[in-house]
Amino acid sequence: MQSLSELHFGDLGMLWIATADNHEPDGGPSHQAIKKRLSSGNELLYRTRDGDVVRLNVETKEKTVLVENKKFEMYKASKYQVSPDMNYVLLAYNAAPVYQHSFTAFYIICSLITPETWNLNPPEVRNAQLQYAGWGPRGQQLIFIFENNIYYRATVESRSIRLVSSGREGVIFNGLSDWLYEEEIFQSHIAHWWSPDGARLAYATINDTLVPKMEIPMYTGSLYPMGKEFHYTKAGEENPQIQLYVVNLNGPLHTMEMRRPEDPRIGDFYITMVKWATSTKLAVNWLNRAQNASILTLCEATTGVCTKKHEDESDGWLHRQNEAPLFSKDGHKLFFTRAVFQGGMGKFFHIAMSSSRPNATTDNLQFITSGDWDVTEILAYSEERQVVYFLSTEDDPKRRHLYSAHTVGHFNRRCLSCDFSNDCGYVSGSFSKDMRYFLLNCKGPGVPFSTAYSTDEKEKVVDLEMNEDLRNTLESMQMPKMEYREITTGDYSLTMQILKPAGFLDTAHYPLLLLVDGTPGGQTVSELFQVDWATVLVSSFDTVVVRFDGWGSGFRGSYLLHKVQRRLGVFEEKDQLEVLSKISEELYIDKTRMGVFGKVYGGYLSSLLLSSEDSLLKCGAAVSPITDFELYASAFSERYLGLPKPDPRAYGMANLANRASQFEDKKLLIIHPTADEKVHFQHTAKFISHLINEKANYTLQIYPDEGHYLHSKSTRQHESQSLVNFFEECFRLPDKAFEERLEEENEEEG
Amino acid sequence: MQSLSELHFGDLGMLWIATADNHEPDGGPSHQAIKKRLSSGNELLYRTRDGDVVRLNVETKEKTVLVENKKFEMYKASKYQVSPDMNYVLLAYNAAPVYQHSFTAFYIICSLITPETWNLNPPEVRNAQLQYAGWGPRGQQLIFIFENNIYYRATVESRSIRLVSSGREGVIFNGLSDWLYEEEIFQSHIAHWWSPDGARLAYATINDTLVPKMEIPMYTGSLYPMGKEFHYTKAGEENPQIQLYVVNLNGPLHTMEMRRPEDPRIGDFYITMVKWATSTKLAVNWLNRAQNASILTLCEATTGVCTKKHEDESDGWLHRQNEAPLFSKDGHKLFFTRAVFQGGMGKFFHIAMSSSRPNATTDNLQFITSGDWDVTEILAYSEERQVVYFLSTEDDPKRRHLYSAHTVGHFNRRCLSCDFSNDCGYVSGSFSKDMRYFLLNCKGPGVPFSTAYSTDEKEKVVDLEMNEDLRNTLESMQMPKMEYREITTGDYSLTMQILKPAGFLDTAHYPLLLLVDGTPGGQTVSELFQVDWATVLVSSFDTVVVRFDGWGSGFRGSYLLHKVQRRLGVFEEKDQLEVLSKISEELYIDKTRMGVFGKVYGGYLSSLLLSSEDSLLKCGAAVSPITDFELYASAFSERYLGLPKPDPRAYGMANLANRASQFEDKKLLIIHPTADEKVHFQHTAKFISHLINEKANYTLQIYPDEGHYLHSKSTRQHESQSLVNFFEECFRLPDKAFEERLEEENEEEG
Repeated sequence: MQSLSELHFGDLGMLWIATADNHEPDGGPSHQAIKKRLSSGNELLYRTRDGDVVRLNVETKEKTVLVENKKFEMYKASKYQVSPDMNYVLLAYNAAPVYQHSFTAFYIICSLITPETWNLNPPEVRNAQLQYAGWGPRGQQLIFIFENNIYYRATVESRSIRLVSSGREGVIFNGLSDWLYEEEIFQSHIAHWWSPDGARLAYATINDTLVPKMEIPMYTGSLYPMGKEFHYTKAGEENPQIQLYVVNLNGPLHTMEMRRPEDPRIGDFYITMVKWATSTKLAVNWLNRAQNASILTLCEATTGVCTKKHEDESDGWLHRQNEAPLFSKDGHKLFFTRAVFQGGMGKFFHIAMSSSRPNATTDNLQFITSGDWDVTEILAYSEERQVVYFLSTEDDPKRRHLYSAHTVGHFNRRCLSCDFSNDCGYVSGSFSKDMRYFLLNCKGPGVPFSTAYSTDEKEKVVDLEMNEDLRNTLESMQMPKMEYREITTGDYSLTMQILKPAGFLDTAHYPLLLLVDGTPGGQTVSELFQVDWATVLVSSFDTVVVRFDGWGSGFRGSYLLHKVQRRLGVFEEKDQLEVLSKISEELYIDKTRMGVFGKVYGGYLSSLLLSSEDSLLKCGAAVSPITDFELYASAFSERYLGLPKPDPRAYGMANLANRASQFEDKKLLIIHPTADEKVHFQHTAKFISHLINEKANYTLQIYPDEGHYLHSKSTRQHESQSLVNFFEECFRLPDKAFEERLEEENEEEG
Repeated sequence: MQSLSELHFGDLGMLWIATADNHEPDGGPSHQAIKKRLSSGNELLYRTRDGDVVRLNVETKEKTVLVENKKFEMYKASKYQVSPDMNYVLLAYNAAPVYQHSFTAFYIICSLITPETWNLNPPEVRNAQLQYAGWGPRGQQLIFIFENNIYYRATVESRSIRLVSSGREGVIFNGLSDWLYEEEIFQSHIAHWWSPDGARLAYATINDTLVPKMEIPMYTGSLYPMGKEFHYTKAGEENPQIQLYVVNLNGPLHTMEMRRPEDPRIGDFYITMVKWATSTKLAVNWLNRAQNASILTLCEATTGVCTKKHEDESDGWLHRQNEAPLFSKDGHKLFFTRAVFQGGMGKFFHIAMSSSRPNATTDNLQFITSGDWDVTEILAYSEERQVVYFLSTEDDPKRRHLYSAHTVGHFNRRCLSCDFSNDCGYVSGSFSKDMRYFLLNCKGPGVPFSTAYSTDEKEKVVDLEMNEDLRNTLESMQMPKMEYREITTGDYSLTMQILKPAGFLDTAHYPLLLLVDGTPGGQTVSELFQVDWATVLVSSFDTVVVRFDGWGSGFRGSYLLHKVQRRLGVFEEKDQLEVLSKISEELYIDKTRMGVFGKVYGGYLSSLLLSSEDSLLKCGAAVSPITDFELYASAFSERYLGLPKPDPRAYGMANLANRASQFEDKKLLIIHPTADEKVHFQHTAKFISHLINEKANYTLQIYPDEGHYLHSKSTRQHESQSLVNFFEECFRLPDKAFEERLEEENEEEG
């Protein structure tokens, strides 16, 4: 089974050449999946597992190798980006991760026609480690970021022009996120956006001058440990300040700040989303610090004036604030999702269509979809067909399917992916620019695969990745059986997911592991394909694994979601205990061998559950647990608990220290990397000092100098193995060891 | 058994009023033992368990309460010091530990005659937390130290005079040790010495300006963790610089530096010992950084000229460099211990007597003792009787007895304590100034007790502390049986100590715990009374505990000691494994259940032993282990391994990282307080990162923000409990749990 955890497959996010998106779909430098772009309508560009970049005509099936990996192998590049004119490739090498998405790397440009190469460096600098480099949407234009300043080249051979010079390392970020924006707001390290014609670049300037510094000790690598400092806003502390600029790249440099809408609700604010509508207009979403009021504006790049297009207010927090709207070509029509009241379960996310009317001061707003399910992503709008394409949970909250809906008439809706395959309940997708083709990535419940279809005939044109090797490997293995069961709590019928060993017998007794995540708005029960250490527990150590999304989880309406506000953990704890008590009544569950696991927020919950009064749980593991929301990121903690001043009661209630005396007779494993930049090791240190005061037992594993996302593969493997060992030991039957001993003795005697 | 670890008794170090030593015998502010001083010959001053300070006439047995604790109870003082004129008491309260010995506190002086009190503060400062305060040898004179500067008061009501003003907090220390001197050189935080007449004060100035800073993260107590910085010399790095001054307190202040002897061997040096010989002369020991050459000088306080009295050089390191010589009243005769060649086992420590001869340039040096045993402490010299009193290992290396030897003629020697009691094999002692009485503290193997004797008749005059409560408590308990066994390795017959459960049966099978310490020159097998968590393992969990001192240990001659030089761990590992293999052949030892434990250097050794090839050990625990001697204190690491540059091989060999791959199938528990100022948490962090690379399992416990010596009682209890739990679990028989289960099931059925 060991090998299972080493198998992996890519998130097959698709890029279409014609849209020339310069954002990498998934930043991980070690990522080896095939990456694809579909050119101009029927041409698909992708990188093979061997590393070649190949152009495939989906109609003729003709393949051209654009970049032969062998030629550039010496760079051991982690990323290949082909220029829009297809004449150059930009290689990133020696990439070093910074936070979840961000990394530094060295870059080299190689001509695909001649043997020429150019190192990418700012003027007067050699061997620069860049924070970013990427092509623009046209020809050979490119930008790169060094020391938080943005540099521009109109062509490969042009000189680099510095677009902005206010950057200060770790303090003022131009075109990039600081830690808070990368992790909690944009969920990307990229904070710049090309206008579609490549004539303008919008970029954020994020100023951390007033943000307090967090210092993380680094133990290895030097005789005296060094402290690594970075700005990090804990709950209630000073937030980074963000400004949005647009620089004009044609002609003399001209930079214009986009001015925030004048609105008393927007004092201390976040910019959560930027997207170009046309070549001169861009949509910007402004969210107040309390995260209960937002304004979607359309900004005029040439004047900096931002006009309100939509406002949103909520008693709970505003959810899904970083999703970009979709525009018609002329920019007059925009589609975005907003939570709308749908009845007994509160609000659900649906597609709003806003159309500018000539000579009218307000826009016409229509909802294209409705019902007690969520639109999860708007993918494309075909003006020709007057159809919008999107993903939703209409079929089942644990599924994602691709739908189309008319933007006129009765907004007729149909599912494009529902009948493709039984193995395919959870999809993502992308469309070619002319909408003639779409790529469908099936992400579960079976082994993931990717296929291109023609939009009109819904006919398969080419299989892109069938993950045959993984499929074959798994078929030879005893994979867990997945079951779902509806649980009725109050007015809700919610789904529990149960993984049972392949050779499951009703008459046997199995230990049970409950996996909790529970970040508000999240979802753990879905048909996403997953193979991880918990799979190993099921298949190799005969464990039953259970997941359940209750109060606070997403895709079930705003009542369920917002219930947890200001009372984080209270309802989740009740919920999960109820589920635990229900499943433990099954005869095949051994009530004396039950455990719980969670990470970050799930680490908080699993500690709550383990220490709960009358909890049947014997053992629990928490990875990078949040133990005190005051120590955690402002944008996260304040979203659910408000500011800790003047009234810190909500924070006090959600502090794990309250539970320190309730871990008697429980086995608790805490795993925490010491250089965790997201959930600081401080969380675990503080919690442990309470445990010690209460004479509680605990076991700790640390990963010295590792960050939150364990960028080292050996560390990730160590973590998986530790978790398997911990639960295997917790779940071990005492007589088993004894029997083995007896057998040994008998053998010796015999 | 729980209560056992909470019982404690004092190290009954005695102070005689006539010598008016202002150094507290043991600094721990929580120390509650009775402290005693014997006045002028027949008067003994002590503090009772109730806190009163009592004067006892040992002849008439008359008691006078000098300080009534009740009167000062409100201060919750941790220390009471009575002024030499007996009119005042100096109280320390709110003491906060710094390192092993040092602490800060607030001080108040209370008159014992009037109700007057005086807060002790530097001029112009209120509520000062002082680093030190104490009476001088005469009248009411006292000094205190604040912000590393020394202040003097001639009487309680005089104004405070600042004696030195070069102090800088944490950087330049006047009259106090920096971390290195406190922990590794003086083994005291006090670095000032009163002349016997109180007319002069000698003090060290220790300058850490060039010493690199260590930063320790402090996780609790603030929203953003703070780094605590202090100067710490790791191996090969810049050492603190020390200078010795004498300030004249009578008349105008006059300060004179004592000049180091001109000797090419003393470049970078330590001052390891200062002691006044007469009221104008002081003995100073200078040791080179390599710790293989030392010069004992006699310095003239009025001129600063230091004259060599004795030189020492060694192929190995010089051992016991901070012990003070003893002087005759006129200062012409001095007694000190030096290692002298004694035959097959190398050098042993014996009493050297150096006598100045009138008009001679060199002194006459005679050795009063000889033999293959060590003099461990010189206690007193009676000029009247021409006798020197000392402690030695002559009876047995694991014992200490009090001896006298004539300083003339044949140096006839006799044991004063050998026939006092069977329960008394390990003593310490002190003499009244006129030598008419001595206090004998019996520290083991039985329950410790203290008695005063008349020197001439060797007759008991008064029992001071019999520890009756402890004795009664232990008598009602199943205390371990202590056995010794001689082990012959090579030319040596060495002693193994075995603790067996009270109800030991030859026919039963016991798990075995090996306790290692093994700091070079140290001793773990002795008749010192000890009750700790290992005692709990023996008495409550039927474990056999074993200790053994092999290569590198003290009190067996210099060959055994110096063997480990430049090869730390190599011979100790072999030794201990051999002992383990021998004892495990005993039928009552269960070979499958053997563990090892050690702290600091012992943590290094226990990790070596656990990971040793063919090691039978199943589990091991290491507390604050040294994992890499390059990270550890210069004065320690360099003593045994030399400088790490230019040749770091000795350090490379002694790095635990070499063993990281050999912990497979072993249970390793590491316990390390995160604010350990002595063995930095960095040791464990670095070692763990190697363990992770090698996929090794480990279990960690940390004590957040606790220092090396775990000043908090609850933390010490948690540590003991964790160790008991760890070994109890490691030693648990698998069938035991099964049997319990069976019983339960039977009960249920029945």
